[in-house]
Amino acid sequence: MEPIRLDEIVARLGGELTGDGSRTIRQIATLAHAGPDEISFLANPHYRDQLAATRAGAVILTADAVVDCPVTCIVSSDPYSYYAHLAQWLNPVASASPGIHPDATVDSVLPASVSVAAGARIGADVRIGEGTRIGPGCVIGNGSTIGGNTLLHANVTIYAGCSIGTRVIIHSGAVIGADGFGFARQREGEAASQWLKIPQIGGVVIGDDVEIGANTCIDRGALEDTLIEEGVKLDNLIQVGHNVKIGAHSALAGCVGIAGSAQIGRRCTVGGGAVILGHLTIADDVNISAGTLVAKSIQKAGTYTGTIPFLEHAEWLKNFARLRHLDAMGDKIRTLETRLAALEKKN
Amino acid sequence: MEPIRLDEIVARLGGELTGDGSRTIRQIATLAHAGPDEISFLANPHYRDQLAATRAGAVILTADAVVDCPVTCIVSSDPYSYYAHLAQWLNPVASASPGIHPDATVDSVLPASVSVAAGARIGADVRIGEGTRIGPGCVIGNGSTIGGNTLLHANVTIYAGCSIGTRVIIHSGAVIGADGFGFARQREGEAASQWLKIPQIGGVVIGDDVEIGANTCIDRGALEDTLIEEGVKLDNLIQVGHNVKIGAHSALAGCVGIAGSAQIGRRCTVGGGAVILGHLTIADDVNISAGTLVAKSIQKAGTYTGTIPFLEHAEWLKNFARLRHLDAMGDKIRTLETRLAALEKKN
Amino acid sequence: MEPIRLDEIVARLGGELTGDGSRTIRQIATLAHAGPDEISFLANPHYRDQLAATRAGAVILTADAVVDCPVTCIVSSDPYSYYAHLAQWLNPVASASPGIHPDATVDSVLPASVSVAAGARIGADVRIGEGTRIGPGCVIGNGSTIGGNTLLHANVTIYAGCSIGTRVIIHSGAVIGADGFGFARQREGEAASQWLKIPQIGGVVIGDDVEIGANTCIDRGALEDTLIEEGVKLDNLIQVGHNVKIGAHSALAGCVGIAGSAQIGRRCTVGGGAVILGHLTIADDVNISAGTLVAKSIQKAGTYTGTIPFLEHAEWLKNFARLRHLDAMGDKIRTLETRLAALEKKN
Repeated sequence: MEPIRLDEIVARLGGELTGDGSRTIRQIATLAHAGPDEISFLANPHYRDQLAATRAGAVILTADAVVDCPVTCIVSSDPYSYYAHLAQWLNPVASASPGIHPDATVDSVLPASVSVAAGARIGADVRIGEGTRIGPGCVIGNGSTIGGNTLLHANVTIYAGCSIGTRVIIHSGAVIGADGFGFARQREGEAASQWLKIPQIGGVVIGDDVEIGANTCIDRGALEDTLIEEGVKLDNLIQVGHNVKIGAHSALAGCVGIAGSAQIGRRCTVGGGAVILGHLTIADDVNISAGTLVAKSIQKAGTYTGTIPFLEHAEWLKNFARLRHLDAMGDKIRTLETRLAALEKKN
Repeated sequence: MEPIRLDEIVARLGGELTGDGSRTIRQIATLAHAGPDEISFLANPHYRDQLAATRAGAVILTADAVVDCPVTCIVSSDPYSYYAHLAQWLNPVASASPGIHPDATVDSVLPASVSVAAGARIGADVRIGEGTRIGPGCVIGNGSTIGGNTLLHANVTIYAGCSIGTRVIIHSGAVIGADGFGFARQREGEAASQWLKIPQIGGVVIGDDVEIGANTCIDRGALEDTLIEEGVKLDNLIQVGHNVKIGAHSALAGCVGIAGSAQIGRRCTVGGGAVILGHLTIADDVNISAGTLVAKSIQKAGTYTGTIPFLEHAEWLKNFARLRHLDAMGDKIRTLETRLAALEKKN
Repeated sequence: MEPIRLDEIVARLGGELTGDGSRTIRQIATLAHAGPDEISFLANPHYRDQLAATRAGAVILTADAVVDCPVTCIVSSDPYSYYAHLAQWLNPVASASPGIHPDATVDSVLPASVSVAAGARIGADVRIGEGTRIGPGCVIGNGSTIGGNTLLHANVTIYAGCSIGTRVIIHSGAVIGADGFGFARQREGEAASQWLKIPQIGGVVIGDDVEIGANTCIDRGALEDTLIEEGVKLDNLIQVGHNVKIGAHSALAGCVGIAGSAQIGRRCTVGGGAVILGHLTIADDVNISAGTLVAKSIQKAGTYTGTIPFLEHAEWLKNFARLRHLDAMGDKIRTLETRLAALEKKN
């Protein structure tokens, strides 16, 4: 990539330049590791003390930090978003040649601008939008549709009858549209307490600008569709059960599990490893802390947490054994209160 | 699919019809969304108030709900199982043409009724039963056996030397037979505290009518086999360690982890995100709640839970900090009791 | 495999033989199931009572257990490592013919000793060391390097620009180098509260002798590399976020989640389902118990735990509801103490 002048950057992305606009940079790096042809940024005040020693060619930061910065600055009210925009400019997504690789198996008619890599298998009646890229080893089931400028990395599986939006990114190993976990437990007869499979005849609908992490699974609906609205970001190894709805611009960290028919609002965040039980409703703008089990609906925006502190093992043994006796502790306190009140009266 | 008459349904699946048996339906839908050529069902009393407004052609329900139903009813003592049976009838598994796709690589002799999709790789000495379907991108290792009428969706991996039953369904990305997590930590010499790999020479044996979710992993045994008995249902992203045994007709929800050599009984259920530690024994008919960590064996049927309530973050901070001091709280209560008793005696 | 004489074993692996060295064995098995041509071992004192009835041809054990052993013994100070070494000898990794399968797609020049299975896709500018095996359906992105004698099982995905060491084992479905979960939340304008993707331009560097479990994900770094040092063992379904560093010879059990930029020391162990939050530092030789959420850094070697006991559901309801009132309980105790002290003074 050609070096880019700082005044060119400010002309396109805004912000205020303090220093020599003819200076050029080629890439972004951290304050600690950037060299003279790299630009860095200060978004987290935690790293402010690294400013003094930075060897970066320039730094993106807020106005109040300029005094501590030994090199050219680009002042922005939101350095982190500025960094994101600039990083996208400096690191365009690697292009792929359009066309179908001879080692792919394609049973649908695709626009000439679509790129299908070796070993991809595309079923019948599949519609794919302009400029979309299907990575090696991907499998797209019959009748699915994928919007334009979408990117499927290698080894993604999309079952039949799913709908994926435009500018979606799906990482390797993700599985979209597998059967939801739907079984009826038989009550009677020889097969009593055995499970009867319920065909999952809904689909999965994924909005525009969604990103789905590696090995994440989004199940198809039982009768209606599972729905991931526009702009949602899912990290790796997330389980989304059948008929879940995730509202626009929510972001879920790795290893989260969402049980069937849960409805998550817009602009929510869910921390890593959290579990949301089935059929619950979570309001818009709710933040669930990592590791929290959400066992009832949340009606109000806010941050919710349900995790416990860890301790050195011996301390933990001592303290957490008490959890089995919390109820008894509560009763003892009540008894003490009664006895003490009686005594106080007497005195 | 041809429309089906209600009296035809009752003739095949039982139940009692209240109304016009010549009426036909084509599909199943929810009470809220069913139209006149769809049938619905009421299994969860929670939805009973949706009956009045349903536009469904007919509803499957229990006798007591007939009074509230404005349309034709099929009365069943178990509407949910009835729905499952009917949904299977209305939605037969999509068929695949038998035979080996020219883009598959097959090193074993298979029955003519087996279907092997493009990009599937089947090793040597593999035996597959009649009517089984191997999806695109599946890999079956040398010497494995798969029963008849089994369905492997796309991109399933089965290592060498595994045995899969009949009528099994395995979803995309599942990995059967990877090495168990077996290492010896060296105690002496230069390599002290380094890990020495223990070859995992057991296999995986999966019974009939098992269903395995997307991206679920079942490890091969260290010396003997990992065993999943008949009728077990595993959801997505489940980890089953080496030498685990899961008893017949148990069902495990998504993101569950079962550590090595755990023995789970028959007809158990395990909620999403639960973790069962190694070498434990769980009795038959045990239900583990979602998110519970099972750290000791369970000898008695019943429901077991070990999760904590979530709170608004500020409330959580206030309450859960106390967990580090539970032991001290217990001691304080005891001291109070002693002091109070002394005072009471005196008075 | 040819039978091996016990004196041959001792000559190669050390230990002391008590009995007939000309006796031969063919395989290793458990004390309970070994037959006369199999050797067993006693590493866990828990199984000592199985010694008396064993039908094994020989047993590897510590000196103190010889008295209870009815058959020939090999005495070792570390029977479990001895077993691991012997099992490796008896069960060499199945060999693969070198060369590129005609159904593979390879755009780089590879040494003749490399084995590339059917359906593998290897990009441009990929370097692979001598004797390495690439399983069916694996995808290796442009510019990645893989050391010698490494084994990629089927359907592994390695993105572009990653570096894998020598003698590494990667199990099926693992994804190395997918984008880290990096987004800037926009603060202003029409797109406020929407997520802006931050290109992940770091790579993944994996040291020698690492083993990576099935469906485990290791994300590429945002600006610098994610780093897995030599000898690390990762079980299945683990999530390793961007810019994480895992120190040499640490071992992580299944379903663990490590958030971005966490730094884990050397020789640590992390139990199944544990979650380590982002930007934390964990010292060397730390053991995290299964199911623990690590929400702050750990500076000192030791074992750390933060899990709660499970109870029968009714008991749990009674006890754990109190957790919401822990703070109030603490306050009540303090009030009782004050009131009691006042009364004691009076008396």
